[in-house]
Amino acid sequence: MKIKKALTLSLLSIILLTQANAKEKIYKLKLATTWGSSAVPLINASKNLASYVEKMSNGRLLIRVDSANKHKSPFGVFDMVKAGSYDMAHTSSYFYKGKDINMMPFTTMPFALTAPELNAWFYHAGGLDLMKKVYSKHGILAYPGGNTGVQMGGWFKEEIKTLDDLKGLKMRIPGFAGEIMTKLGVLVTNIAPGDLYTSLERGTIDALEWVGPGMDIKMGFHKVANYYYTGWHEPGPDTQFYINKKKFNKLPKDLQMILEVAMKASSSDMYTYNYHLSGLAWSKMKKDYPSIQIKSFSKEIVKELKKENQKLITKIKSKNPLFNEIITSQENYLKQVRPWTIISDYLYIKENKLSKIQK
Amino acid sequence: MKIKKALTLSLLSIILLTQANAKEKIYKLKLATTWGSSAVPLINASKNLASYVEKMSNGRLLIRVDSANKHKSPFGVFDMVKAGSYDMAHTSSYFYKGKDINMMPFTTMPFALTAPELNAWFYHAGGLDLMKKVYSKHGILAYPGGNTGVQMGGWFKEEIKTLDDLKGLKMRIPGFAGEIMTKLGVLVTNIAPGDLYTSLERGTIDALEWVGPGMDIKMGFHKVANYYYTGWHEPGPDTQFYINKKKFNKLPKDLQMILEVAMKASSSDMYTYNYHLSGLAWSKMKKDYPSIQIKSFSKEIVKELKKENQKLITKIKSKNPLFNEIITSQENYLKQVRPWTIISDYLYIKENKLSKIQK
Repeated sequence: MKIKKALTLSLLSIILLTQANAKEKIYKLKLATTWGSSAVPLINASKNLASYVEKMSNGRLLIRVDSANKHKSPFGVFDMVKAGSYDMAHTSSYFYKGKDINMMPFTTMPFALTAPELNAWFYHAGGLDLMKKVYSKHGILAYPGGNTGVQMGGWFKEEIKTLDDLKGLKMRIPGFAGEIMTKLGVLVTNIAPGDLYTSLERGTIDALEWVGPGMDIKMGFHKVANYYYTGWHEPGPDTQFYINKKKFNKLPKDLQMILEVAMKASSSDMYTYNYHLSGLAWSKMKKDYPSIQIKSFSKEIVKELKKENQKLITKIKSKNPLFNEIITSQENYLKQVRPWTIISDYLYIKENKLSKIQK
Repeated sequence: MKIKKALTLSLLSIILLTQANAKEKIYKLKLATTWGSSAVPLINASKNLASYVEKMSNGRLLIRVDSANKHKSPFGVFDMVKAGSYDMAHTSSYFYKGKDINMMPFTTMPFALTAPELNAWFYHAGGLDLMKKVYSKHGILAYPGGNTGVQMGGWFKEEIKTLDDLKGLKMRIPGFAGEIMTKLGVLVTNIAPGDLYTSLERGTIDALEWVGPGMDIKMGFHKVANYYYTGWHEPGPDTQFYINKKKFNKLPKDLQMILEVAMKASSSDMYTYNYHLSGLAWSKMKKDYPSIQIKSFSKEIVKELKKENQKLITKIKSKNPLFNEIITSQENYLKQVRPWTIISDYLYIKENKLSKIQK
């Protein structure tokens, strides 16, 4: 009887222990970023994510972050997550418009939503559902991954006053914005990032678009171009976290939630960090190179950019009902939310934009 | 031997099981909000926090949210967390300027930082350290808890054109902004929220300040006042999560991290949700009451508001080195970051503020 009791007790303990240990199983995910290891603050979104997740799960969920320096395929991360060779990625949806045009609007569209407006659209006006619809075809779950805020219109060696000044201008400006610029007569060229500074310095190109002060400063463009144009084409570009849907579904519910909340927190971190870095970099550029001038494109140019943007969008819409649905949703939301942006932040800054701050 | 082996095995299992179960201990925290249960979206910050934390911890960390309807002491939550009768709170730091003037700047200051600028200051320019310094005296850890974005200058029954129009004006505007308005000759009155609509309708008061369209619409002020003034006194007021430091230190490290990351995510949620609600409410107000006019105070009035604001701040600074340190830090950061806000969001919106969006 003593043996039996002891054995029963032992057996029961082992069963309970096994249950407890099942929860302690360690899940490992591999994440590939489009960015290189030194692309601050883009790379930080994934680093923060990995750190949050590890600490919150007490080591049960581990994310290995491989930058493009390691996996060598910056724009291959979509395919890798789709195929399951990587579990996750951090990238931007619009890089894959060649694979599926519907992915483009989840990053940004010219003359469209700013960072807080885009976030509000994602979480409260159907944006996330539309993103789910587009990505589910590819077996991927996509989440907002951190916004860079307004991207600048680019660095120009000469001032651009009229539409004529754009004709024949050699400029590095990729993607959809490049297509629009082409319609205005710009000779859009593709140059490797490592050669951009020299190309601009030597006049191989007359202008280029990169990100904003926070990332531009390391490239040194402000040393060789005097005119910094304000943004129009990427008013609030968001990055995305991808996760292979099957891999996500295999995680226990608590780890799924840990991952989702950590993605939201690290997205917020990235936006805030880039805001800070841009302020810091811009104040340094202005101080070191006081000849830099901020310019906005003229009404004539903006009108033409908007016209060509609409033409291109209308063409894609006509062939593609889902693209039409996404763009219409964003356009309607813009009409609803922009008046608030104007009466809140815009008019506040208008009253407080002078250097005579607090005086 | 069999008995001994079985007993040893049993004992070992029990020890391991006890260790495993120690991790399964359930921690319960009580959180008191300054807001009532229907104060959307302020109340949502705590509700989201509780939901995230419960799911991420698999039920090991539970937060009970008591709104002011339950604990009956909206502005008593600071003392309750300090004393330990509540473990946590969600409130705004500036409500407690009477207890400790240094708490004020962590919410907002007139003519100072907007929501993204304040966040950048908190996380990258020493703001969090200064907040820690102030709150540690009270045994409380304070965290950014969600920003409302720019708060409007208020509803006015008559247009305010000159400084003379403010003299003798009866207005509900509490806190530091009320002190400034008093200097300009405004008769600042204190009226219970439930009586505000009737007071404005009947002319007991001529004007009042509340939050912004998202929260104002439920109060109905737009039905009885025609002039909606843009913001100046609360350009990006943040709320705060409080937690009693001793209680926080008793939590296991993983639950501490779960709590911190969930606070960050739910803060971001609150800002985004209020942005959406404000856009929605403002578009509805404009449609239903087309006579509403958006106004900004004249240069003459703004100049006077800034002057009196600076006078009050200088007075507090002179008596209080830590307040001086905090305000100087914010002022320096504003000078660094505001030029970026201007060349990014401000100039983008300037080019895209017309109703002829996308045309």
